[in-house]
Amino acid sequence: MRLSLAEVFRLGVDTLTHNGLARDHAESIARVITAGQRDECHSHGLYRLISCVDAIRKGKVVLDAVPEVEEVSPAITRVDAGFGFSQLAFDRGLGRLIENAQSIGIAALVVNNCYHFSALWPEVERIAEAGLVGLAMTPSHSWVAPAGGGKPVFGTNPMAFAWPRPGQHPYVFDFATSAAARGEIELHRRAGKKIPLGWAVDASGAPTDDAEAALNGAMLTFGGHKGSALAAMIELMGGALIGDMTSADSQRFDEGAQVTPCHGELILAFNPHLLGGAKAAQGAQSAEAMFDSIRAQGARLPSQRRFEARERAQQDGVELPEGLYRDILALSGR
Amino acid sequence: MRLSLAEVFRLGVDTLTHNGLARDHAESIARVITAGQRDECHSHGLYRLISCVDAIRKGKVVLDAVPEVEEVSPAITRVDAGFGFSQLAFDRGLGRLIENAQSIGIAALVVNNCYHFSALWPEVERIAEAGLVGLAMTPSHSWVAPAGGGKPVFGTNPMAFAWPRPGQHPYVFDFATSAAARGEIELHRRAGKKIPLGWAVDASGAPTDDAEAALNGAMLTFGGHKGSALAAMIELMGGALIGDMTSADSQRFDEGAQVTPCHGELILAFNPHLLGGAKAAQGAQSAEAMFDSIRAQGARLPSQRRFEARERAQQDGVELPEGLYRDILALSGR
Repeated sequence: MRLSLAEVFRLGVDTLTHNGLARDHAESIARVITAGQRDECHSHGLYRLISCVDAIRKGKVVLDAVPEVEEVSPAITRVDAGFGFSQLAFDRGLGRLIENAQSIGIAALVVNNCYHFSALWPEVERIAEAGLVGLAMTPSHSWVAPAGGGKPVFGTNPMAFAWPRPGQHPYVFDFATSAAARGEIELHRRAGKKIPLGWAVDASGAPTDDAEAALNGAMLTFGGHKGSALAAMIELMGGALIGDMTSADSQRFDEGAQVTPCHGELILAFNPHLLGGAKAAQGAQSAEAMFDSIRAQGARLPSQRRFEARERAQQDGVELPEGLYRDILALSGR
Repeated sequence: MRLSLAEVFRLGVDTLTHNGLARDHAESIARVITAGQRDECHSHGLYRLISCVDAIRKGKVVLDAVPEVEEVSPAITRVDAGFGFSQLAFDRGLGRLIENAQSIGIAALVVNNCYHFSALWPEVERIAEAGLVGLAMTPSHSWVAPAGGGKPVFGTNPMAFAWPRPGQHPYVFDFATSAAARGEIELHRRAGKKIPLGWAVDASGAPTDDAEAALNGAMLTFGGHKGSALAAMIELMGGALIGDMTSADSQRFDEGAQVTPCHGELILAFNPHLLGGAKAAQGAQSAEAMFDSIRAQGARLPSQRRFEARERAQQDGVELPEGLYRDILALSGR
């Protein structure tokens, strides 16, 4: 199946509204799902509609939540998502975030009380489109053990960063602080495959290469004690600091329903013109020189594969497996 | 040799002023050196005076630089260190950073044009003492290869974070984004010991366990491509964003003198009361619950060893090897 990006977007909106989600929410979500499909991040593409509809049907998410925007200070915008999905809340707060950062150089967007399932790169890329540097982080559900322990405390806790590059794709990364994605371990379990050692421990805290034992035990962070410290920082910055749930809080709040995590998100924007002052242009050149010296030695910048997929998709649309297309059509009421 | 903390401080001030450093600079540096010695971070304790005096004698550092504080915006304070050491510039900007974060919730302290050699934890701990969350990062000299490459681009690029805990030591980490400290590799070389694989590559880009080959090749980041992405973020945030040098720029600026790196530093402060709003107290409780769940499983919080050493030192002073004490006395003119 080949679909244009406009068709992907319409399929997303139709599927979500057919299942009872308010149109403004459906459009915000369909935009990030279209971006995921376009960039060949398949787990964040149309495939994600399946778990999204599942979350809707479980009845926890407020389907017509109206995000409430509060200007806390010249630097802080808070959006209370009202226990709806996060994307509309982000969209409603983004304009103020950008204006604040343009005006005083740094700003925060705090999103509270949202159900969260999307990647963070679409958000930091929108900040970079405004010529600003974006940094975003959020907890998830407590699946990941701290270094030196074996019991779950942290979420997979992603962190995303974008640096604007005029006339080019931004420098962007978006990674989980867990050694692997939880979905990756689930795929191994379904396929009956071993997982690499270092991804997880079993319920007794011992290293395991068994996917089932890993899912019943605890995942590990990337990078040992440093990755573990970062995961804790994300709990604190994207949870406790903004008066919202940590991954453990969110796990309890879920009450076993296995809905996408409910918590908050912290998004920061930085203005290179104000932070760099008279040397801002020189700073931008230093950044480009660094990117050049990475690429000159044959190393890749993060997100390059996504950008290459994006260029293909903008020309030719996206390719979708027949089975997935039929599954989604069945949910869409078409 | 046993010295009280007051004696460590005086020895630091005397040694630095005897070598021509202005008294206000000497006091700022002696404070962080005393903190390092107190916390048994020996490489950042009195030992550091040796390389500090070496840097002074090489004639690059401006010994009586007067930090110039500029209020860029309600959120940004810039201190031009005037090519002096960083510590006095930090001290001069800290008050504004704290006031801005207290007033509008987030603030940045940009330090430009400084020679930098200290750990970052003393800085973020001072932010935490004010009840704020601190985050600091800085480049160094280009010694570290990006993931997928084998040539130096990044510095050892430390990042430090502190979370205030009323009545207790803060949650603090301070780590290099390189797999190991450069000094650690140098110690292995002097001892004729192999380094672990994963720390570095040789000049041809091949993995090496030879310390000499590592120092002539490139160090590696911790955590593979994720650590590499973080190292790049620190170049961008602590260098390009603030209109200052990246690690490669700083390496060139050094012109082979092997003085401590000259560049900038970005320090951020966050106010939990404004970011958490009505739920700030609940956020603080969630943080404590997370710390408890880490410790309950026998894992340690970062910096615990430092805090234990600190309590000993505050009672009993610090223990210093005779040889080191004599080396420093010889530099101090006493």
